Amino acid sequence: MNDKVRSHILANQRAFIEDLSTACRIPSVFGNDAALHEMADWLTARLRQAGCQVEQWPLAGGPPVVWGEIGAGERSLLSYSHYDVQPADPLNLWDSPAFEPVVREGKLFARGVSDDKGDVMSRIHAVETYQAIYGELPLRFKFFVEGEEEIGSPNLAPAAATHAAQLQADGCLWESGGFDNEERYTIYLGVKGMLYVELRAGGAVCDLHSAYAPVVTNPAWRLVQALNTLRSADGVITIDGFVEHVRPPTPAEESYLDHIPFEGAARKAQWGLQQFEGGVDDREALKRFLFAPTCNICGIYSGFIDAGQKTVLPNAAMAKLDLRLVPNLTPELVLDLLRRHLDRRGFDEIEVVRLGSLSTSRANPQAEFVQTVTSALADVYGHQPVVYPSHGGSGPMYPLAEGLGMDAVTVGVGYAGVNMHAPNENIRVDDYLKHVEFLVELFRRFGS
Amino acid sequence: MNDKVRSHILANQRAFIEDLSTACRIPSVFGNDAALHEMADWLTARLRQAGCQVEQWPLAGGPPVVWGEIGAGERSLLSYSHYDVQPADPLNLWDSPAFEPVVREGKLFARGVSDDKGDVMSRIHAVETYQAIYGELPLRFKFFVEGEEEIGSPNLAPAAATHAAQLQADGCLWESGGFDNEERYTIYLGVKGMLYVELRAGGAVCDLHSAYAPVVTNPAWRLVQALNTLRSADGVITIDGFVEHVRPPTPAEESYLDHIPFEGAARKAQWGLQQFEGGVDDREALKRFLFAPTCNICGIYSGFIDAGQKTVLPNAAMAKLDLRLVPNLTPELVLDLLRRHLDRRGFDEIEVVRLGSLSTSRANPQAEFVQTVTSALADVYGHQPVVYPSHGGSGPMYPLAEGLGMDAVTVGVGYAGVNMHAPNENIRVDDYLKHVEFLVELFRRFGS
Repeated sequence: MNDKVRSHILANQRAFIEDLSTACRIPSVFGNDAALHEMADWLTARLRQAGCQVEQWPLAGGPPVVWGEIGAGERSLLSYSHYDVQPADPLNLWDSPAFEPVVREGKLFARGVSDDKGDVMSRIHAVETYQAIYGELPLRFKFFVEGEEEIGSPNLAPAAATHAAQLQADGCLWESGGFDNEERYTIYLGVKGMLYVELRAGGAVCDLHSAYAPVVTNPAWRLVQALNTLRSADGVITIDGFVEHVRPPTPAEESYLDHIPFEGAARKAQWGLQQFEGGVDDREALKRFLFAPTCNICGIYSGFIDAGQKTVLPNAAMAKLDLRLVPNLTPELVLDLLRRHLDRRGFDEIEVVRLGSLSTSRANPQAEFVQTVTSALADVYGHQPVVYPSHGGSGPMYPLAEGLGMDAVTVGVGYAGVNMHAPNENIRVDDYLKHVEFLVELFRRFGS
Repeated sequence: MNDKVRSHILANQRAFIEDLSTACRIPSVFGNDAALHEMADWLTARLRQAGCQVEQWPLAGGPPVVWGEIGAGERSLLSYSHYDVQPADPLNLWDSPAFEPVVREGKLFARGVSDDKGDVMSRIHAVETYQAIYGELPLRFKFFVEGEEEIGSPNLAPAAATHAAQLQADGCLWESGGFDNEERYTIYLGVKGMLYVELRAGGAVCDLHSAYAPVVTNPAWRLVQALNTLRSADGVITIDGFVEHVRPPTPAEESYLDHIPFEGAARKAQWGLQQFEGGVDDREALKRFLFAPTCNICGIYSGFIDAGQKTVLPNAAMAKLDLRLVPNLTPELVLDLLRRHLDRRGFDEIEVVRLGSLSTSRANPQAEFVQTVTSALADVYGHQPVVYPSHGGSGPMYPLAEGLGMDAVTVGVGYAGVNMHAPNENIRVDDYLKHVEFLVELFRRFGS
């Protein structure tokens, strides 16, 4: 059975790589509207060729979502990926032109080959391979391919809301994944949410001579005082009601810590640190990295910051904070808690401006979909995958995952050397073929 | 007696104004070394012409101090003033060229005429007038005229130390003074000191993705926490040992508060404030302005401060503080207290860099010299002068005043409309002549 799949993939490997190369020749860099639309049209035709029902969903001011559906059966899978890519600059650091894909030493080099056209095309090739070996796909597979990921997916949530019924599925394959630097296949079951705010404190109508400091309130002091109420010296977030809303990791989520490699000493050496925040050990550091919410100062500014002395009492001060969120903290809740917290302490003059927000999304590790992905990975790749119950960072996963009541898992064709967003972006051809094999196996198991 | 003085001054007013204009024609802007030396040489010759023993004291890398001595008697007075001026920019906002002095509507317009050549020349003209009317000056008058005031007097303290014996006198006439905006003659008996420091907190070897905030210490948080220990929410400085060293104003100093005009409502309206810091009343605000030490944030910076969002964990943070000092806080003491305070709270990784310091200087309001200046001002100007026991700001007064055991008082030829450091700098000719008359009267009273 697997032999037939493998034989088919090997027999078609040149065609697959040439097909992927065709996709990579289109310079669908964000901002290049013509190329983005060319890419959307090419993908539309390609999905149709695979047998999909295809639609383009126009978005406000951006390139469309390309939507394709194929297969039959009780169950369905949603696939999230994107066809826009990062710019190729600096061009002179590429060993071959970014939009002229070429295979060297078993690797296919091209801008976007890993992020994220390899993921898109491997899923098309998997559908086609399944159909060639087994006939009709035993589940309904739904391609959602957007063209705005590299600019922060500004239209993802509204598009998901508009097409909620059509998007509904029994699991979601997220984009981006592969091997870590020890060649362990690695998946993520979620992301943290985020609230990004700017705090703004005002003062007199203009900057004043600092001789007036005894009588004129300094907004930089007000900001420092306000910030200091948000977090204890040992890093605990002290916004009223914040920690009370945190759902701690479940035993199932926490159990993954035992299997996640984390070299604390290497990280500390890399970053030049004596210790992790709070002096915690490696396991606790990993646990916090994955599960702890944060209140981080991204930036702070007031007054005179050039070299030398200037005796000024500034009339404005600001700080930018990102708060990484975990279940059950929503951006709306945290914004409200923060406002109330400041008001309660007399900091009602400090403005809180929301600059961005992302919701937390986390799959249930015990869900059948997650278990099926994990077991298929283990069998195809020959080792248990490393499973992260959440990423330490954030992403636009929620609208297509937890927001629709779905579990999402990141899978992809990558490895530690893909050079994402950098010159000489590449994937390994063998990884690509193996990933197609895995997807075919997943279809077989989850659809049966 | 006064009639003779007044007659002499009126008879010579054209000559005085022409003489002052000659001084103002030399563009002795800081940085213009040729003009600064030309000015020093002109002044040297002019003091010699008045009968002074004159020296030039070379300084490290700057224009010299011009030193002149004249007169005889038990007592002596030191005069501090300066011959360097601010740049004339923006030139297009001057109604007449900055270095072509001209009288319009009773005012003499020129860069430097108020700050500070009017003070220099009025003291020369007063010496000459005294000699013309009464003969030999009844005290030893010592001109100390520097050329680096506008760049912060970097060589004043060493020059004062080198020439301490020669500088010794029974009182010091400081530069800059005159009428306030209600035409009340105003003098200051001192200045606050200052310690200017930069606090620097470091972190990882480079900025990191803010996903690592749970495990990597953020130097911006460390700085905020450290700063917050320096000052209470209501503005009291909480550096260990700081307030304990403050000598409160004496009853004599505090009694001046009753006579200093302070329009709190007008100040608040001008600055756009609902209230003064701490909601204090006008008298308390004035008291704090004159007598309270400060710990002011001049600037603070870390990380990303442009528009929009960037999720970064900065690897450095800094704040610039100016601490205005009062008796008995010295810059050295405060620097030491600050360092110990931070160390005691575990902030020993935060670097404290001293960027500048000035010592507090305050005259004894009951000293005979101060009383003589005040009574001479009252008699000549026809009203009691407004006496500030200290300025709210700082200046390089200490090395020539309290540092030599002397009382210093600011007097000058200015008024509220002098446009100091601005286009159309000017003095009123009548103010100049009146000030010469006052100085002659002061010589007579203090020398007798």
